Amino acid sequence: MEGRRFSAALGLLALVLLMVVPLSALGEGAGSSYVEVKLKVKAPTGDILVETPVSGDTVKINIIVHNSNDNSRVITATLMERDNAGLNISWANQTVDANGAWDKTYEWKPSDGTHELIINVTGEISDTVIRSIEVRSAPAESSLVVIVPIAGLIGLAFAGIMTWWVLKQDTGTPEMRKISDAIKEGAEAFLRTQYKWIWVIAGIVAALFFVMIFVFTGNLREGWMTALAFVLGAACSSIAGYIGMMVSIRANIRTASAARTSLDRAIKVAIRGGAVSGFSVVAMSLLGVAGIYYGYGIIGGDPRATPLLIVGFGFGASFVALFAQLGGGIYTKAADVGADLVGKVEKDIPEDDPRNAAVIADLVGDNVGDCAGRGADLFESTAAENIGAMILGVALYPVLGINGIMFPLVARSFGLLATIVGVMVVSTREDGDPMAALNRGYMVTSVLAIVGFGYATQQMLSNAWTWYFAAGLIGILTSWAFVYITQYYTESKYRPVQEIAKSSETGPATTIISGIAVGMECTAIPVIVVSIALFSAFKLGELGAGDLGVGTLAGGFYGTAIATMGMLSVCAYILAMDTFGPIADNAGGITEMSQQPEAIRMKVDRLDAVGNTTKALTKGYAVGSAALAAFLLFSAYLEAAHLTHIALDKVDVFIGALLGAMLVFVFSAFAIKAVGKAATAVIVEVRRQFKEHPGIMTYEEKPDYGRAVSIVTESALKNMIVPGVLAVSVPIAVGFILRAEALGGTLMVGTITGFLLALMLNNGGGAWDNAKKFVEEFGKIRAKQLRDNPEILAGLRARSPEIFEDLMKKARDSPDDMIIYGKTSDMHKAAVVGDTVGDPFKDTAGPSLHVLIKLLSTITLVLAPLFVVT
Amino acid sequence: MEGRRFSAALGLLALVLLMVVPLSALGEGAGSSYVEVKLKVKAPTGDILVETPVSGDTVKINIIVHNSNDNSRVITATLMERDNAGLNISWANQTVDANGAWDKTYEWKPSDGTHELIINVTGEISDTVIRSIEVRSAPAESSLVVIVPIAGLIGLAFAGIMTWWVLKQDTGTPEMRKISDAIKEGAEAFLRTQYKWIWVIAGIVAALFFVMIFVFTGNLREGWMTALAFVLGAACSSIAGYIGMMVSIRANIRTASAARTSLDRAIKVAIRGGAVSGFSVVAMSLLGVAGIYYGYGIIGGDPRATPLLIVGFGFGASFVALFAQLGGGIYTKAADVGADLVGKVEKDIPEDDPRNAAVIADLVGDNVGDCAGRGADLFESTAAENIGAMILGVALYPVLGINGIMFPLVARSFGLLATIVGVMVVSTREDGDPMAALNRGYMVTSVLAIVGFGYATQQMLSNAWTWYFAAGLIGILTSWAFVYITQYYTESKYRPVQEIAKSSETGPATTIISGIAVGMECTAIPVIVVSIALFSAFKLGELGAGDLGVGTLAGGFYGTAIATMGMLSVCAYILAMDTFGPIADNAGGITEMSQQPEAIRMKVDRLDAVGNTTKALTKGYAVGSAALAAFLLFSAYLEAAHLTHIALDKVDVFIGALLGAMLVFVFSAFAIKAVGKAATAVIVEVRRQFKEHPGIMTYEEKPDYGRAVSIVTESALKNMIVPGVLAVSVPIAVGFILRAEALGGTLMVGTITGFLLALMLNNGGGAWDNAKKFVEEFGKIRAKQLRDNPEILAGLRARSPEIFEDLMKKARDSPDDMIIYGKTSDMHKAAVVGDTVGDPFKDTAGPSLHVLIKLLSTITLVLAPLFVVT
Repeated sequence: MEGRRFSAALGLLALVLLMVVPLSALGEGAGSSYVEVKLKVKAPTGDILVETPVSGDTVKINIIVHNSNDNSRVITATLMERDNAGLNISWANQTVDANGAWDKTYEWKPSDGTHELIINVTGEISDTVIRSIEVRSAPAESSLVVIVPIAGLIGLAFAGIMTWWVLKQDTGTPEMRKISDAIKEGAEAFLRTQYKWIWVIAGIVAALFFVMIFVFTGNLREGWMTALAFVLGAACSSIAGYIGMMVSIRANIRTASAARTSLDRAIKVAIRGGAVSGFSVVAMSLLGVAGIYYGYGIIGGDPRATPLLIVGFGFGASFVALFAQLGGGIYTKAADVGADLVGKVEKDIPEDDPRNAAVIADLVGDNVGDCAGRGADLFESTAAENIGAMILGVALYPVLGINGIMFPLVARSFGLLATIVGVMVVSTREDGDPMAALNRGYMVTSVLAIVGFGYATQQMLSNAWTWYFAAGLIGILTSWAFVYITQYYTESKYRPVQEIAKSSETGPATTIISGIAVGMECTAIPVIVVSIALFSAFKLGELGAGDLGVGTLAGGFYGTAIATMGMLSVCAYILAMDTFGPIADNAGGITEMSQQPEAIRMKVDRLDAVGNTTKALTKGYAVGSAALAAFLLFSAYLEAAHLTHIALDKVDVFIGALLGAMLVFVFSAFAIKAVGKAATAVIVEVRRQFKEHPGIMTYEEKPDYGRAVSIVTESALKNMIVPGVLAVSVPIAVGFILRAEALGGTLMVGTITGFLLALMLNNGGGAWDNAKKFVEEFGKIRAKQLRDNPEILAGLRARSPEIFEDLMKKARDSPDDMIIYGKTSDMHKAAVVGDTVGDPFKDTAGPSLHVLIKLLSTITLVLAPLFVVT
Repeated sequence: MEGRRFSAALGLLALVLLMVVPLSALGEGAGSSYVEVKLKVKAPTGDILVETPVSGDTVKINIIVHNSNDNSRVITATLMERDNAGLNISWANQTVDANGAWDKTYEWKPSDGTHELIINVTGEISDTVIRSIEVRSAPAESSLVVIVPIAGLIGLAFAGIMTWWVLKQDTGTPEMRKISDAIKEGAEAFLRTQYKWIWVIAGIVAALFFVMIFVFTGNLREGWMTALAFVLGAACSSIAGYIGMMVSIRANIRTASAARTSLDRAIKVAIRGGAVSGFSVVAMSLLGVAGIYYGYGIIGGDPRATPLLIVGFGFGASFVALFAQLGGGIYTKAADVGADLVGKVEKDIPEDDPRNAAVIADLVGDNVGDCAGRGADLFESTAAENIGAMILGVALYPVLGINGIMFPLVARSFGLLATIVGVMVVSTREDGDPMAALNRGYMVTSVLAIVGFGYATQQMLSNAWTWYFAAGLIGILTSWAFVYITQYYTESKYRPVQEIAKSSETGPATTIISGIAVGMECTAIPVIVVSIALFSAFKLGELGAGDLGVGTLAGGFYGTAIATMGMLSVCAYILAMDTFGPIADNAGGITEMSQQPEAIRMKVDRLDAVGNTTKALTKGYAVGSAALAAFLLFSAYLEAAHLTHIALDKVDVFIGALLGAMLVFVFSAFAIKAVGKAATAVIVEVRRQFKEHPGIMTYEEKPDYGRAVSIVTESALKNMIVPGVLAVSVPIAVGFILRAEALGGTLMVGTITGFLLALMLNNGGGAWDNAKKFVEEFGKIRAKQLRDNPEILAGLRARSPEIFEDLMKKARDSPDDMIIYGKTSDMHKAAVVGDTVGDPFKDTAGPSLHVLIKLLSTITLVLAPLFVVT
């Protein structure tokens, strides 16, 4: 009786225990007793989980005996080396808890060569594990690594030379100078205030992180290293953004002035002024990452442990980028929307008309949003993705040594040098196409970057270099693909923009509907491109791993990292093209406001149109690189958080994922709303000035530009706080409440959603913008004009016969004087509504989402150690 | 020398093998030799993976010996029972491959009671695994299960009675009948054509699936069972939708006519007409699922195997729902947008004006979109989620028997019975608030459903019933939460709608911007609500599992399933309220078009306003239940695909996830575009009629309503094909190319993104709609009127002092005659643009996304067996 009850109870207990193991967890080896062995390498800054040690490493052999039985069991464990009597240790009569484990760690400093370890367990559990360890000398550092500081310094020097060259250009007429000074003043005031705010928040964050890391990990060194790296990252990002903008707001007037001489001169001033941004950003990020890596290496010791310590640098960069892009993006669009709504729509005066009080604010906005904002964005990309790639390089340490870790920086260095040549070859004839000139530079940069990339892989990545070179090529091809996709969706030559233009015939509602549909539809090809790029880079990486003799997973991850490096190798040139945009835009504004002759205005307008294109392209590039890089940053997060997987089927991970996607939507909502709020403030102010000073409209009075500038500044900065803080606090909250794996869900699904939403907002906005331009392109046409001479719209007919037919029909039904195409037509009014809606999409929320995606990666990487479940 | 080379080669090989195991896979027991034991139960339709067998089961004991060594090893394996000599088998001198495994399956029919199995492996690998198996008799089927067919039949009978009651009501004046007949004719023509198309596609799909399943699994029985279930699901869904609509298009005129007697009579006709939809949908789904479950049970044998075989029923339902919602949604909004744009905006005639050729199409649209579409949507919910919950119930079979599987249907049955009472108590006084009357019915239904739910849990879920009852309560609370959240975001009493109304002061662009911001922002609270509901239901389920003595994971999943059942228990009432919307809307149209006296129009307008609210609420409910149900359907997918996890960090799963999110965006793009295309066709036609028949405008000629109806029908159906086929083919493509786990990524991330985008589209659209109504609410006000008597807008001031102040300011600055508020004011024009943009969002793309989410779940469930990687 006693025995039966006991065995029944035992059975029941076993049943419960059996059921605790979920149905779906079957096949994981659960329910069996076995021996597990883990190897780690001891390092001054904490142990590193490695598969293969190198010469001089102290290896920690961690033996774990799992007991799946309901009784505790007694064992004897022995650890020895087969051929070599050097290692022979035994733990006798050890108790392994019921349904628990026994574990022991032995520290060992093996000599070079192959060691065959035998771990033998006998007694109530018996099992033998044999592990072969080859201890190799990691290859020496390639001499090519020296190119990193050299390229960094050359880049800075070149930025200096470009600055000097731009500054010595002529500054035009006194009227031009007056306007330019106003822009300069406004931009400087904004940046000063903005950085002050950012630095206050950054200071708090740095202190907070130091305390959090120290309290939760107990590791003082890790705490201050992360906090210091954060501060340095934030500082470098700020400085790079600041330098770029300071030159850009000086290049604008010089571009305008140069246009009076030749188009070639003007384009040179603009692209070289833009190059200062490109070079300072990339050079600072190279020097910053490399400097802090070596600096910490000297103090911290092991090169494999350091990449994880410097993620703070990337986080600092993202942090500044987030606020810079948000603040700048809100500013630029609030000023733009405000100026347009009162000027173009209500008062029917042209863009950049000096009577509009918000026009200077609008010109300032181009600089602080596009130039400083995207500069910070790409600084962060170069920094964060370099660090992520370095973390993945650690896995290849035994076969590539420090070269695998440093390769990302070397590849970037070659890209920087290639860009110098690319920027210098930009030139055009007087009647040439400025876009073709810029494209030529891009092509030269790409080709040289490919050559440099090939050389670097061949020198540093051992016998696997061909595979990794191919992965890098995929990255460069991806950058081209994104540039073309963006063109397709945002240029009026193609179907999407024409569709929107056509729908503007039926009013603003259909314009909006078709623009949103274009935005949603345009996610398809980029997703497919990124999917193919990731998949093939991963497979190439696996092949490379085969040649190197390392694990395919580590190799695959490294392959995606290399592809990202490929894509980013042309980053400096892209950034130069991007900054070209606001410079040309400002030059246009200055020319318009200072009432220059028509011929010069036309010339600058051509540059401005090209600038609009380059701005759109670089946004496509930025979001594409963010998506490609996402996967490498995920992998780095897994490493940092000691996670095997992010299993989306777990309830907490699923909730984390939901919250990540939500963050993206809510963040965008706040960014868009901020523009609305700030724009309302501008509208009210401009209206007030027009009303209280009727002389403005008749050019008898000058509007008060300064007041408009300071109103936008204040409103933009106030409104960047909520979304910015939201972006930082959601991941922290998820990490603390739901822990590391759920935070991984937030990171990954947030990134996917953010990528798609950014595409939708960027391309939808860009398409609306160009649909409006499409309606303006062939002038203002009245019904009678078209009826009398349909050839007047031959250009339109060539591009879209459908729209032309509709207009002809309309012309037949309308009174003679009715404007049926071009500015002030109903069609144009509808198109302007689309453009206005698109403004905060493409210049505030979209670009801020790129930054948000990367901020998610860096903040989760930095905080990973706090949320690890042990 | 020889020896050294050999050991070096061995070492290198070992190194490679070591590295093949990814860094991150450490700790999974890799690198050790051990014994694993799996238990399955043999069933006629394929083995079932279960942890605990029940009496009479044939158990398959699967022994796997893993060898992590680089040499093959020889072992002897023994399987025996400890106390009982009944089982004793041994395999001697078996070879386990190097780095491979040896496995053997033994079939065994154990007696009831506890069996302790000892699996002992000796030789070059030695390990012992002891497994306790308790074989129990599963509890008998609860007598409560009989309620399922009873409730189903009562539901159908009640639907019949309601139909009879509605049909015997008065059909009003001949003018009313003429209009109603036109609506009926249009709706029937649409539905006939639509179902013809759907059935052609469904036939192809059924054949395709039969062939695919047969070819890939080789299981003929599984093939035809799935295909037959698909056809039955599709048929039931079609019939339920058809019945509901047939009654609804007859209830509209009777509601209009009843309004001539009393408000009470009108509301009763409308809600009872709506109830026919609710009852037929829920009753058909109960009878369908239960019938096919029992039917297959008789043929197929094991009750644990059947739920997975009937997923085809859910897929059939989703399939019809997708096309019904898409086609109907496109139809309704194309007609609405087309009618509004020409009528209200261009010609300045009121809504539902008989001179508008598209007005009948518009009224038809209300029925085919809201009524047939949402009916199909909720039919699918009730079917798919029931089946998903039944699949999860299988895991609890040893402790709950068939009761765990049938509980979802029983709970639903009680909900259906509760709804009968709820519908019957709806009544109102002449001056009462119709919304309060509907809410009273909802409250009664909820309370009775809770009582029934409690009784069902207590009877069927053994000693864990309190936990599961609590989980059910969470579901019902979640349904209330969604109803309130939707109200907050879409009613003019609250901030979001007022914000949009305010932004319409500055034109259409700001109206759109703020509406989109509201849409994005409104994702926050629903996500948090769903997160809390899932988390707590899961935890309650775990506690329940503890009481039942089963695995916490299975219990947790079941907890979320129960919560979903709770949420869906009031589904029939919700659907009745939803169908109330188009009936009231149509009644309004009929009253308007037949030019009834003002007093009756006012009365019907009150019902119509309430109908707009209920339509918005039910959309909130539908999307909320889709999100809550998603998790249970994921879990069912894991079961079906034999997956342990969906690991988002794997490159193929990540790509699958990217594609899932993309599908949602692109699908929405096509749905929105389809509306634009179909609307353009309507606009062209209405304009043509106005132009060619100037007599229409002066009431001298009648417009050709029929032509407008057939143009929308054709265009809507043509345009539903692309998004529909896309939704079906993307998951199939991902499954075939990237396999089951990647498809899991598509499913989960597609669902998350779809949930958020649907919230954004539904609530953004609803908010625009009500912002427009807000601007209309207090009549048409001219500047002078307001200046002279600010009290004229006292109602507005009470609701939003800010907007009132702005209007006062505007009144002071405007000429006397200027309309500054109400219809035809600039503010109103801007608000109408918002409303028009919102139409395809909230009535086409949003609701179609609910269906897409669930289609993803059912199609992946059905196809899971094809994509399993073995």
